[in-house]
Amino acid sequence: MSKGITKRSENYSEWYNEIVKRAELAENSAVRGCMVIKPYGFAIWEKMQRALDDMFKATGHQNAYFPLFVPKSFLEKEEEHAEGFAKECAVVTHYRLKVNPEGPGLIVDPNARLEEELIIRPTSEAVIWNTFKGWVQSWRDLPLLINQWCNIVRWEMRTRIFLRTAEFLWQEGHTAHATEQEAIEETERMLGVYADFAENWMAVPVVQGAKSPNERFAGALETYSIEAMMQDGKALQSGTSHFLGQNFAKAFDVKFTNKEGQLEYAWATSWGVSTRLMGALIMAHSDDNGLVLPPKLAPIQVVIVPIYKTPEDLAAISEKVDPLISELKAKGISVKYDDDDKQRSGWKFAEYELKGVPVRLAIGARDLQNGTVEVARRDTLTKETVALDGIAGHIENLLAEIQANIFRKALKFREEHTFLVDTWDDFKARIEEGGFVMAHWDGTGETEEAIKTETKATIRCIPFNSVEEAGKCIYTGKDSAKRVLFAKAY
Amino acid sequence: MSKGITKRSENYSEWYNEIVKRAELAENSAVRGCMVIKPYGFAIWEKMQRALDDMFKATGHQNAYFPLFVPKSFLEKEEEHAEGFAKECAVVTHYRLKVNPEGPGLIVDPNARLEEELIIRPTSEAVIWNTFKGWVQSWRDLPLLINQWCNIVRWEMRTRIFLRTAEFLWQEGHTAHATEQEAIEETERMLGVYADFAENWMAVPVVQGAKSPNERFAGALETYSIEAMMQDGKALQSGTSHFLGQNFAKAFDVKFTNKEGQLEYAWATSWGVSTRLMGALIMAHSDDNGLVLPPKLAPIQVVIVPIYKTPEDLAAISEKVDPLISELKAKGISVKYDDDDKQRSGWKFAEYELKGVPVRLAIGARDLQNGTVEVARRDTLTKETVALDGIAGHIENLLAEIQANIFRKALKFREEHTFLVDTWDDFKARIEEGGFVMAHWDGTGETEEAIKTETKATIRCIPFNSVEEAGKCIYTGKDSAKRVLFAKAY
Repeated sequence: MSKGITKRSENYSEWYNEIVKRAELAENSAVRGCMVIKPYGFAIWEKMQRALDDMFKATGHQNAYFPLFVPKSFLEKEEEHAEGFAKECAVVTHYRLKVNPEGPGLIVDPNARLEEELIIRPTSEAVIWNTFKGWVQSWRDLPLLINQWCNIVRWEMRTRIFLRTAEFLWQEGHTAHATEQEAIEETERMLGVYADFAENWMAVPVVQGAKSPNERFAGALETYSIEAMMQDGKALQSGTSHFLGQNFAKAFDVKFTNKEGQLEYAWATSWGVSTRLMGALIMAHSDDNGLVLPPKLAPIQVVIVPIYKTPEDLAAISEKVDPLISELKAKGISVKYDDDDKQRSGWKFAEYELKGVPVRLAIGARDLQNGTVEVARRDTLTKETVALDGIAGHIENLLAEIQANIFRKALKFREEHTFLVDTWDDFKARIEEGGFVMAHWDGTGETEEAIKTETKATIRCIPFNSVEEAGKCIYTGKDSAKRVLFAKAY
Repeated sequence: MSKGITKRSENYSEWYNEIVKRAELAENSAVRGCMVIKPYGFAIWEKMQRALDDMFKATGHQNAYFPLFVPKSFLEKEEEHAEGFAKECAVVTHYRLKVNPEGPGLIVDPNARLEEELIIRPTSEAVIWNTFKGWVQSWRDLPLLINQWCNIVRWEMRTRIFLRTAEFLWQEGHTAHATEQEAIEETERMLGVYADFAENWMAVPVVQGAKSPNERFAGALETYSIEAMMQDGKALQSGTSHFLGQNFAKAFDVKFTNKEGQLEYAWATSWGVSTRLMGALIMAHSDDNGLVLPPKLAPIQVVIVPIYKTPEDLAAISEKVDPLISELKAKGISVKYDDDDKQRSGWKFAEYELKGVPVRLAIGARDLQNGTVEVARRDTLTKETVALDGIAGHIENLLAEIQANIFRKALKFREEHTFLVDTWDDFKARIEEGGFVMAHWDGTGETEEAIKTETKATIRCIPFNSVEEAGKCIYTGKDSAKRVLFAKAY
């Protein structure tokens, strides 16, 4: 089982693949670019969903469900949007198979061609704004605050499990507002929700900011994102929130009568996070021993492994452990008691380490005598012997401490790998080494492109919190008013 | 707003459509046969999902996620299965659009044709058993108890919102076992879970039984179902559980080493319920005033409507209501206080009646003086004045009573519309009137077909609890050992 995992320092990409596989999170399916999310990986995703869904509802949003299919003519209505997604559309052209008259198996029935092709949704602005047309008449119908959890297909050429897959799972919020100001506030609010989730649930510190025009969502006036640093110094865009202006309202003719009795187009936002977050979670925290999970998202927060030789030993241990399990569960802590006799305890230790279980308790005959238990932390890989008496409270505090420690560690790593850079040579060297580079930029798409071509670094965002500071563009030497965040990215 | 709804007695089908629309549950989308599930309808579905998901987990199942796409060659591997679904497959043939060189808009890029067509999953046996091949080696890997929540596409020609749609949402359980006996037990267990959910959550009594061979799932050795009676006397198949034998293990070569070291094919089950349950819920309980919801699935269980003229009145009412809301929430009761001043209370009463909110409280100035509140029940449409003191406990009991009453009512209706019939003339007359008909059948597919052709009635199931009783087939007069359940069905 526990053959060593490739070290991060040796081959970061291979290390990631091995963690995904060995921790049983997901695997590539037989369908090109599509993944199977395995039960353990899906349990983590379910925890993410539940936390995010609660946050969306707390901010007034309601869930709904819209069709998988986007008629081609709908996609065409918002031109920029259409062009942005055209190259990666899975297209349904027929609705029936039939028995092959000339051999074995089935063939597509040529008589069952659709009059209009249907696109598998690459995102749902078109379908949803077409629906909103029927939902919005008066200012009283606004704001519309809708979210949906669903699957999405974008036919990407190069795929990578969780990070970029042809099919992925996500949520997409779509809102309609009576005023521009309200829509902008919504765009900002939801980016804030994402940042809150990333930092306080995933324990991943993020930089919030605006995308450069080149990197905006197709059809948006403004795209905000949260950017996280992975352990190889690369950025991972972890969530986006778009201010769409009136583009979709105009494309789908969504008008409302305002308080003054005049017809106006509604203002739109959309925002989403996806199973890509699983990639961020894995790459931000895990180590050369396997997955490291923040307790708030761990399907199993505490595992208890009995160390015994005889059935009598096990019975004596179980008698001590049973009330502890009840006590932990009463505190809302998910706990697994692994008394499976098919595996040795050494195998179990390695397995739960690999799977990132935050706290492991081991208890044997000597512990019973002494009234103690061995407590191991996954994040620091440290162990201590603790009195069984009062252990539940100790564990509760420990889980909170692990959650905080994982965040602190990731924040420290990011701080140590974020650099202010003022010359082109330094820039190239820093980008080559990896990390976030805060540098001046002249604000043009041409310069951005040129920098990308030469270094593979892109502007991840124009951070909201960066101070106004006059400077010269790293590449052209032209004037710049503030630094932007450059990095290589996933 | 509250223009009358078509009565059930006048046009049951139109009544159903109006309930779906007026209670804002769902609507047809612009995409043929696909629906939009609106926030209120989706909130009910979410409650169903949560309850079912908890039941699946309590019986040892884990969630996972498998690809949307089934390669055509996978579907072909289990022949019966392939033929069963071929006629309703949405087929992806291309993966890119491009700008139309000869005019406006986008066209399918002829250079982006897939080598092998992909079917949008009409069910996932093929994809999942292809995956199980990699997960099953030894008896130690079994049983595999997997469930997924996802969307499904079956290109039905005649669609009806919730009941039969081209795209729908469902869960599909897929399990693999070491022995035939275990797989049969699982098939039965999950049918029991569905029956439990239907009766104790949806308040819909169901008949559990086995499908006749003609009505089995394509590829199954045995299909069990739960059958519910709608208020027009028709049956609605509400959930199915299939024993698949070794068919899929053989088609996808899923073998394991048993305890004796020999290779064997695994045994399979699959089971599912879908958004069709929404149709069953609506049609089983609702009345000519609108939706009627069992409290356990109601997004809003209690609505409180203040009756006031001045802001001071409202403030005085709110002061009384606020602690009540806290008390109800502490009991886990979902409550909405509708103090919106844009609508009159009469409008609100009609609205919540239409939406099936189980309990409505109204409180005005006189109630304040008297320390009372008006409590209205949606199920019986009765009202009573109750002391505010101790009202939270009263409501808690009332919700339980409403849940039980809705079930009793549906059960009584079914009993009154279930008939033992022994002659062909009686059979035809009863089927014509509507209801469940328990009659003898000679066990052949030919007779079943002939009865269907003449009366539109099908064998809904061979009930598990029907007694052995010698008799003569209603149609052919041949010997029969027990009665089966006939009905017209959705």
